[in-house]
Amino acid sequence: MLKATIDTETFRESIDAVAALVTECRLHIDGNGVRTRAVDTANVAMVSLQLDRDAFETYEATPEDIGLDIAKMKNIIGMMGKDDLLSLSLAEGSHKLELAFGSYQYSVTLLDVNTIRKDPNPPTIELPGRVELAGSALSSAIKAADVISDKIALGIDAKADLFFMAAEGDTDHIKLELNRDQLLALDAAEARSLFSLDYLKDMGKVMGRAERITIALGVDHPVKFIFDLAEGKGHVEYLLAPRIEAD
Amino acid sequence: MLKATIDTETFRESIDAVAALVTECRLHIDGNGVRTRAVDTANVAMVSLQLDRDAFETYEATPEDIGLDIAKMKNIIGMMGKDDLLSLSLAEGSHKLELAFGSYQYSVTLLDVNTIRKDPNPPTIELPGRVELAGSALSSAIKAADVISDKIALGIDAKADLFFMAAEGDTDHIKLELNRDQLLALDAAEARSLFSLDYLKDMGKVMGRAERITIALGVDHPVKFIFDLAEGKGHVEYLLAPRIEAD
Amino acid sequence: MLKATIDTETFRESIDAVAALVTECRLHIDGNGVRTRAVDTANVAMVSLQLDRDAFETYEATPEDIGLDIAKMKNIIGMMGKDDLLSLSLAEGSHKLELAFGSYQYSVTLLDVNTIRKDPNPPTIELPGRVELAGSALSSAIKAADVISDKIALGIDAKADLFFMAAEGDTDHIKLELNRDQLLALDAAEARSLFSLDYLKDMGKVMGRAERITIALGVDHPVKFIFDLAEGKGHVEYLLAPRIEAD
Repeated sequence: MLKATIDTETFRESIDAVAALVTECRLHIDGNGVRTRAVDTANVAMVSLQLDRDAFETYEATPEDIGLDIAKMKNIIGMMGKDDLLSLSLAEGSHKLELAFGSYQYSVTLLDVNTIRKDPNPPTIELPGRVELAGSALSSAIKAADVISDKIALGIDAKADLFFMAAEGDTDHIKLELNRDQLLALDAAEARSLFSLDYLKDMGKVMGRAERITIALGVDHPVKFIFDLAEGKGHVEYLLAPRIEAD
Repeated sequence: MLKATIDTETFRESIDAVAALVTECRLHIDGNGVRTRAVDTANVAMVSLQLDRDAFETYEATPEDIGLDIAKMKNIIGMMGKDDLLSLSLAEGSHKLELAFGSYQYSVTLLDVNTIRKDPNPPTIELPGRVELAGSALSSAIKAADVISDKIALGIDAKADLFFMAAEGDTDHIKLELNRDQLLALDAAEARSLFSLDYLKDMGKVMGRAERITIALGVDHPVKFIFDLAEGKGHVEYLLAPRIEAD
Repeated sequence: MLKATIDTETFRESIDAVAALVTECRLHIDGNGVRTRAVDTANVAMVSLQLDRDAFETYEATPEDIGLDIAKMKNIIGMMGKDDLLSLSLAEGSHKLELAFGSYQYSVTLLDVNTIRKDPNPPTIELPGRVELAGSALSSAIKAADVISDKIALGIDAKADLFFMAAEGDTDHIKLELNRDQLLALDAAEARSLFSLDYLKDMGKVMGRAERITIALGVDHPVKFIFDLAEGKGHVEYLLAPRIEAD
């Protein structure tokens, strides 16, 4: 059972964060809030979303797992006004999620939760390097690299005390270096891994709106991007596997 | 013969209203103004447009029927500035319509009026339900329904004293209810008919700009949308046939 | 050798001016500045660009010819902020042009200058008619003609003391006349030539931003469009061959 209201912007950002990787997900609802964890079809990237009950205007729920068609949610969100308040309602044992905003009432049939991949187990990895920067800076860097390559290296030069991203095309390359003064925070452990820009472009569109992104990095290890929604009452974490560096 | 000037916005809205249904039309010109009535190729929807001579800045005409390529007019309109005054001129017996605005002079060959479908006779139907609302509200409702279906029901719930629109998808549905306070006017006769969103979407783009739309409705009957252009000196009426409700 | 800084807007306009006709060019660098001259693959249009050393914030160079991939430059320019300062640097004998702006550093491999067409010789032609007008007026006229035709006539009616452009479609035509009062300058020698709108559309997008365009015209002769960049410290000239007027 779920009976909640939420401002449409928070709902939109939450759905967008998940939609960057998957078209459907298992949503876990309980008295503390709503969360989901999903892996893309190629098993390369994982998204974890947590919306605390405080992220909602009103919130009442009993534990339940539901299957949500993320693509359909995106269409419906497109109809919402900026200042609308969205009310979500799911009766005990029902398979219909009711969404109401303005004078509109949508009724959406949920997906059978058994047809959706089980929650992935987050790998236990240690990522000693840590960088904090504005989402817009990260998003620009991803776009800049995309101009000349389909891969990007992210890393920390511990000696020079800076965060870098670098991309190599067939004949060209690009490098972006941000030192401690140009970052919001830096734990300067040596790090460097290569990532697919295909994934990063979709994530970048979502992360570009965040005021502050924490990047956790290692050497030839996955990268984690961690950021907040709804003034800290929502949390998103992306995990992206590295690509092998070919010479 | 026609010799007239008109502000480009009024001309643009008039052409757009007709272009939502047909690509060419018969224009009837006489001393009282200009009017046309046209049916789409599938005979599902009809548009009637009347521009009074007062809708023009200057106006002089002798009775004549001309064939107008609406699609071509739309292209030329795209070149006009917002504050341009458009002068229209058609010499006695000529097949060339001259359009002048800014420093531009277009000369457009008219279509042979005999190759264009005769004016349809408007059916005599009684539509007892009547609703008045802002064009933007109607246009939003059409877009919202389009997200989940290709048909929309429009109706009046006389007992509940409200106007509704509803759409059913394969698994989802949407409902919008507007009560007397949320409408500009309501004649609450029971009504409900189903319509194709294909047609309504094109009409909706035009109607979205109107301050006030009157909708006339019956039970499994066509719907009429009536609205003004040019501060009441132009009038548009759309008539749309209902679709059979399949169960 | 080149070591220079330039504001990104001037660089962007310079690259756009060349990109309207070609995807690569030979850039001649020396102590006085940078220039290029290139002809499109069909030998119909030529662009000449000259950027004086004063168009740069700082400038130091020894004579060199380099091969520039204009299409790639356009991609990189897309990443630059409006207020960024771009620094260009090419070491003696190097084949890598370094571009730095914001915190970004791009390294771009130059094209082998021998694979790029030699500089064309500008034809010696006399074009007695001369018109000066705002770039936006010229750009609008090109768009207006494009609605009904793929060719445009540009000319001067010496008797009527006006500049005209005219286009003929299969059934329609358009004419624009600008008299001396509507122009910035006019040398009213009789002129009329026909040009392909395909070329003019691409040039028109660039010229639309110029405050003042000089057009040099003759009878069935090429047309020259001459305009400044960077407050007169950069100069662009387009030369376009006429088309045969078919009757």
